[in-house]
Amino acid sequence: MTEGVEWALHCCLNLAWVGPDRAVTATRLAAFHELPPAYLNKQLQPLARAEILTSTPGPRGGFRLAQAPERITLLDVVTAIEGSTEVFRCTEIRQQGPLAGSPELYRDPCLIHAAMQRAELAWRRELAGQNLDDLTVAVSRARPGLPDRVRRWFHEAAG
Amino acid sequence: MTEGVEWALHCCLNLAWVGPDRAVTATRLAAFHELPPAYLNKQLQPLARAEILTSTPGPRGGFRLAQAPERITLLDVVTAIEGSTEVFRCTEIRQQGPLAGSPELYRDPCLIHAAMQRAELAWRRELAGQNLDDLTVAVSRARPGLPDRVRRWFHEAAG
Repeated sequence: MTEGVEWALHCCLNLAWVGPDRAVTATRLAAFHELPPAYLNKQLQPLARAEILTSTPGPRGGFRLAQAPERITLLDVVTAIEGSTEVFRCTEIRQQGPLAGSPELYRDPCLIHAAMQRAELAWRRELAGQNLDDLTVAVSRARPGLPDRVRRWFHEAAG
Repeated sequence: MTEGVEWALHCCLNLAWVGPDRAVTATRLAAFHELPPAYLNKQLQPLARAEILTSTPGPRGGFRLAQAPERITLLDVVTAIEGSTEVFRCTEIRQQGPLAGSPELYRDPCLIHAAMQRAELAWRRELAGQNLDDLTVAVSRARPGLPDRVRRWFHEAAG
């Protein structure tokens, strides 16, 4: 998994705290965690394409969450950055070699593939069961003052 | 995930059918699925290091399962090939930037990291809950004649 997922999740969390009334530039989001702005911007674009963020142009433009935090799951963010390709890639080697049969024998999925898919499904389910609101609540509990400070820092920057 | 995981799982399944009495060479395992022998051999070495396979040298040497199929889980095979590194890599970007605090604030794990770890745990749990014996049973059910044909092919080759 690329570092883009870590960056995207932190940016989404920060945008959840900033709230829907202010747009935040990629440069400002990058400054908050000392990330390379141009490369961070490349991670934010797929989030906009996936309708997790909205991106508005212009001097007061920038990124906002496109939906309420409770409607954006970790799976949404991971899929936007990494795509929905399966981690385990089945190349159907069962169909190769001296005992390989005719194609109709292989209509049902390879059972090794199916077993690996069950594990990926468990992973996706767990990611889908956690949303940005769960994260903001958990962080607010662990560091009570932090959300307000984050909000203020971004609001000052935007204003 | 590399193609080595697919190859390793198929090889382990074949060795489960061959049984513990015969060793099978990497060349022969490769021929069964038309895989590149030298590169397959590189995937079998970590399985031997992880004590999933035993490797014996000599003209009658080769690979066998080091344990009963029901004692070898899919997680064992995946971990032997891919390592146990987490898929999500947390670089602690929360500790960077204008609002970063002193190191003692970050003793507890990052909550984004923790959320991603829960998903990986679900994936690992599912892989750990499936073993080679489950796979052989499932394949035997789907293709009743196959295990015997596989066994015969490898036994003829070894004899």
